[in-house]
Amino acid sequence: MACIYSSSVSSISAKLNFTSLSNHKPRFFCSLGGAVAEPKAVNATEPLLLNAARGKEVERPPVWLMRQAGSYQLLCEKHPSFRERSENVDLVVEISLQPWEVFKPDGVILFSDILTPLSGMNIPFDIVKGKGPIIFDPIRTAADVEKVREFTPDESVPYVGEALTILRKEVNNEAALLGFVGAPFTLASYVVEGGSSKHFSKIKRLAFSEPKVTFTAWFFTRYFKNSQAPWLNTFSTKLTRELKPFRFSTRGPRNLARRFQEFSLPYLKQIVDTVKRTHPNLPLILYASGSGGLIERLPLTGVDVVSLDWTVDMAEGRKRLGPNVAVQGNVDPGVLFGSKEFITERIKDTVRKAGKGKHILNLGHGIVVGTPEENVAHFFEVAKGLRY
Amino acid sequence: MACIYSSSVSSISAKLNFTSLSNHKPRFFCSLGGAVAEPKAVNATEPLLLNAARGKEVERPPVWLMRQAGSYQLLCEKHPSFRERSENVDLVVEISLQPWEVFKPDGVILFSDILTPLSGMNIPFDIVKGKGPIIFDPIRTAADVEKVREFTPDESVPYVGEALTILRKEVNNEAALLGFVGAPFTLASYVVEGGSSKHFSKIKRLAFSEPKVTFTAWFFTRYFKNSQAPWLNTFSTKLTRELKPFRFSTRGPRNLARRFQEFSLPYLKQIVDTVKRTHPNLPLILYASGSGGLIERLPLTGVDVVSLDWTVDMAEGRKRLGPNVAVQGNVDPGVLFGSKEFITERIKDTVRKAGKGKHILNLGHGIVVGTPEENVAHFFEVAKGLRY
Repeated sequence: MACIYSSSVSSISAKLNFTSLSNHKPRFFCSLGGAVAEPKAVNATEPLLLNAARGKEVERPPVWLMRQAGSYQLLCEKHPSFRERSENVDLVVEISLQPWEVFKPDGVILFSDILTPLSGMNIPFDIVKGKGPIIFDPIRTAADVEKVREFTPDESVPYVGEALTILRKEVNNEAALLGFVGAPFTLASYVVEGGSSKHFSKIKRLAFSEPKVTFTAWFFTRYFKNSQAPWLNTFSTKLTRELKPFRFSTRGPRNLARRFQEFSLPYLKQIVDTVKRTHPNLPLILYASGSGGLIERLPLTGVDVVSLDWTVDMAEGRKRLGPNVAVQGNVDPGVLFGSKEFITERIKDTVRKAGKGKHILNLGHGIVVGTPEENVAHFFEVAKGLRY
Repeated sequence: MACIYSSSVSSISAKLNFTSLSNHKPRFFCSLGGAVAEPKAVNATEPLLLNAARGKEVERPPVWLMRQAGSYQLLCEKHPSFRERSENVDLVVEISLQPWEVFKPDGVILFSDILTPLSGMNIPFDIVKGKGPIIFDPIRTAADVEKVREFTPDESVPYVGEALTILRKEVNNEAALLGFVGAPFTLASYVVEGGSSKHFSKIKRLAFSEPKVTFTAWFFTRYFKNSQAPWLNTFSTKLTRELKPFRFSTRGPRNLARRFQEFSLPYLKQIVDTVKRTHPNLPLILYASGSGGLIERLPLTGVDVVSLDWTVDMAEGRKRLGPNVAVQGNVDPGVLFGSKEFITERIKDTVRKAGKGKHILNLGHGIVVGTPEENVAHFFEVAKGLRY
């Protein structure tokens, strides 16, 4: 599976203590996930999540959590640098496997960050505890753009491929392996704003200004598109070579219908098309938080699965998406603070509303810091006990 | 007009510098606005905004901005306490009139805060520069609730009525006068969480837990409902006595369809019903930021106008609302960082998509700190020059 994400912590859940990262607000997630086209790819042991994403008959909805994690906090204390945790193969593997070892979800997602590619693009950044991401030299002019280096994944982020290879062996086809990348507009927003932003006024100033500056904004978007496509292909090759999947994301709560149409949709579609040309059977998931007003447009990207945020009623979301795309989501992460009876009831309600098949059960947002671990365990237990 | 709001700064725009308040994140806004039923109420000089809210024929959409303000920053330096600015009659009047004097909008909104009623409910709070609202003793148990005093508007917040009376004379029927209050669940969220919150895990823990605690949460909600209704009535009486309108709000970006159905809709509906019994012609506006997935449900509250946030395409929002309710909004506040040509084009696009009549032009969120003042002036100039 492949995903496009926009949060630095989007690949791992923070079921115990995620305080150090809690200020880094996730944005518009697009997840592109997929698996192999090779002859032997689809077999009896194919992970449930892949089958559901492909619309095949399954006995229950597969389940995983966005930002799922195990004993993450302990690891944060030992390795306080987020970049170290997300760029060191051993740590990436360890963190990615934590939830797998504890909860056996149907999907194991690579621990990474949407900003990870920036390290290979001459855009220095850090992710600071309590502050979130910081881009040291925000890119706001054509001259700034000139300094940006073309992204070559194998050279710049070799640990990603290496970690995927190890994870593939560890998970051993018992679950789907998911990767993820941030979508073009999301990354452009970070590098223009200089980090997280509430109103995105700097990138909007560029995007909504006179043609010359607008061109600069567009150039960014294209630039990131061109950088992401090869990365996603590297990811995809790694995943498909290993007969495994991947995930991908963009910024959304701030994505007006029209802005989505202009600045996100065309590039997402190009990325999906590019990946599908070489990896036609790699399911792609798109997560767009805050996209309640855009639901009908999301399948136009060509993804296989649209992940709904929790503000949308699953029955209405399922209907608005149409029958050709699978759906992921969308239990309110706040439900995991409720009673076990309440959690059970909401899981069943969501699964019932999503309908039989083409549904990957998940939260409608990343798991929240402070969520009781026993409730996460209960969530997985109930979900895995369901049968259509 | 009457509005229900959830932001401390929701009644005033921050077109120049709103830094001191920028960290106080607005939530789910519901605006209930209205005007008089008295025989002489509807006359030739009736403000455009009232006529549009009532579905009467108008030559152009009326226009005002959420959080509109004039030289607010200068005033903030002189009076650094937000509570002083929002609770002192002279300051409330001065701030409320600033945008009126500069831009002559079709609506003048009372400068106030959704937390204002707390001062009369024995719930001590402050709004701290750079931090937002702080509730000193968050309410989380039934015992805490016992300490909450019934809210008597005339005794606790007399400055609100006094300011409205002065504003009424100053505006002199040339524009609609708007008041606003926070909706029950919004206020409950603040007092339970202790201030602004990202995930609302504390109130969700209460709301989603075993019956006993759930009852507590429900009691809160009812409590606030009961406190808001009389306030809104006081507001309404003041406004209608002066032949003028009002506005009202609740929390939304975090309002899942189902939570809205359970925790917001019934109370909002009761409030609307209560106000309408005594002030049947007072138009009520509901603003629910982040409600792209809930649009069809918003008119069920019984309000006259639904304010759409900027993530929704106006044509789709208008269609999803149905023909019986007026619509407010919803230009992206980021557009005001763009070129004048771009601003003009987006205004026209929004007005065209909203259709003729039953539309109040506004942003789809409060105006953003740092918005160029000349662009705000341009926004009003273009909007007021439009004709259907």
